[in-house]
Amino acid sequence: MADRPAPLFRRVAIIGSGLIGSSLALAIARCGGAGEIAVADRDAAVLARAEALGLGTSYHATAAAAASGADLVVACVPVGACAAVAAEIAPVLSAGAIVSDVGSVKGSVIRQMQPLLPDPRRLVPAHPVAGTEHSGPDAGFAALFDNRWCILTPPDDADPEAVDKVAALWRACGANVEVMPADHHDLVLAITSHLPHLIAYNIVGTAADLETVTQSEVIKFSAGGFRDFTRIAASDPTMWRDVFLHNKDAVLEVLGRFSEDLAALQRAIRWGDGDQLFDVFTRTRAIRRGIIAAGQDTASPDFGRRPAPEGTAPAGDGPPPAERQAS
Amino acid sequence: MADRPAPLFRRVAIIGSGLIGSSLALAIARCGGAGEIAVADRDAAVLARAEALGLGTSYHATAAAAASGADLVVACVPVGACAAVAAEIAPVLSAGAIVSDVGSVKGSVIRQMQPLLPDPRRLVPAHPVAGTEHSGPDAGFAALFDNRWCILTPPDDADPEAVDKVAALWRACGANVEVMPADHHDLVLAITSHLPHLIAYNIVGTAADLETVTQSEVIKFSAGGFRDFTRIAASDPTMWRDVFLHNKDAVLEVLGRFSEDLAALQRAIRWGDGDQLFDVFTRTRAIRRGIIAAGQDTASPDFGRRPAPEGTAPAGDGPPPAERQAS
Repeated sequence: MADRPAPLFRRVAIIGSGLIGSSLALAIARCGGAGEIAVADRDAAVLARAEALGLGTSYHATAAAAASGADLVVACVPVGACAAVAAEIAPVLSAGAIVSDVGSVKGSVIRQMQPLLPDPRRLVPAHPVAGTEHSGPDAGFAALFDNRWCILTPPDDADPEAVDKVAALWRACGANVEVMPADHHDLVLAITSHLPHLIAYNIVGTAADLETVTQSEVIKFSAGGFRDFTRIAASDPTMWRDVFLHNKDAVLEVLGRFSEDLAALQRAIRWGDGDQLFDVFTRTRAIRRGIIAAGQDTASPDFGRRPAPEGTAPAGDGPPPAERQAS
Repeated sequence: MADRPAPLFRRVAIIGSGLIGSSLALAIARCGGAGEIAVADRDAAVLARAEALGLGTSYHATAAAAASGADLVVACVPVGACAAVAAEIAPVLSAGAIVSDVGSVKGSVIRQMQPLLPDPRRLVPAHPVAGTEHSGPDAGFAALFDNRWCILTPPDDADPEAVDKVAALWRACGANVEVMPADHHDLVLAITSHLPHLIAYNIVGTAADLETVTQSEVIKFSAGGFRDFTRIAASDPTMWRDVFLHNKDAVLEVLGRFSEDLAALQRAIRWGDGDQLFDVFTRTRAIRRGIIAAGQDTASPDFGRRPAPEGTAPAGDGPPPAERQAS
């Protein structure tokens, strides 16, 4: 232990103990990235659960209490709550403290937090592109960010040393770090994350409202594709409400394109244009291959959620094929 | 072996060696449901592969050759090819032979096949609600139907004994059997399977066409939700083209509702109506819970595709929390 290098940060304050906050606390503990991990949650029951799980080294009912004495404060709250966190921590921030977040929208976070902070150049917004459909402190795990991307969107005038330190922490937590402008982040994530969630929520809602198909039928026969959408549509409602309210322009842009493209498919179905359908359905396979080649998903059928058989040869207690052919 | 009961069928002909046909051949072999399994594929390379994999007991270049002498013929072909299969096998069918299929659309299959068969009352259409995004004989496995639903849609005048025998075979192959009218099947599957596939294909196409976001960015940051859609959008294009062409009315009906609902969400985003978004996002969680409770999906985060950690306590080589708090 004597040879262990000094941690990157003396005290990291994690504001909010949801899936991402609790996973970040565990990941920082795993890599030894901080001397202290001060965990805050304004919900007393959640905070008690965070303490019972041993997520940090101290537990605080307010963001200000956790942020006091911290050299890094990470807001792990719904995007719509970032301004309130900035306002609360600003009076107690140590000189030189870095402020960051984990929100899925970055332009809005900068607009909300930067004007309220004593040292706006030490705001380093971050977005770990990782998560599950589960919420709350019990859902957190240290490996959540392993080999996932974490996107940093420092404003042009951000302090390079602060950016480097936040990047180093995320790398130590297992993530790969990418830096890009906030507005570009918001457009990329609109198509890779926000629109998929909106569509998943929407189709599950549409199914629930059908008068001619019962909910039990929807559930029973969901293996045909629908169940994949329900996983995404089980994500945290508060977080996602805020994503759509705070990334309105980019979401409306990609949603408009999606709807146009869907109308073209609808027309092809109505008019029986099989060639057009076949062309669209063929070229989408290439993107899947790219995602698997990039290590962003498993190639196992059905995400590997069904155990694959030992082999493809006939199994069980029947006679082998040659015998049966002779019978 | 002497005590083994006689198989349900003397000779089953599997017409088409794709994912479903090859899995059905393996599942029948596993349960000993047939004395012979005659495998046909009009594609010589696919047929050779089926033989190399040992999927059946005999291999045939034509549907007629496989169907000769069979007491059950199962068309495992895209829905649009069912009429051609019926026309080809009709002249060679044994007296009393049952004809079935595995298509994802049932009304069209009945309309295509029934008029061409010598004994229309022995047509028992079936749809195993199971599959993966992979195609071809190598993708097949005997356990594909285990604990999945297989829906039979016998016409009103179908022979009850034929229906019972087909149901018994599917149960022996691991499936749970449900019987319903073809038109109701086509509406239920339009929402639980066909619309999800159409939407997945569509969003992947929309993403590929964005000028402002590169394809490599879409791939890199797909973990935010998009990659789930790409799995579904990697499904067999021919099969899915035929599904949409042959279930046009039901798909257009649910697609119309989906688009209306999506327009309402779009309006809520544009006007900043967070309460409406929150309400929709909250009630969709209940359907996910129903699917997990019904055993139709795993409750593991991310379908279990990321290995879960050993526990949620901080791990790795850092000091335990108590020590760090004291430092």
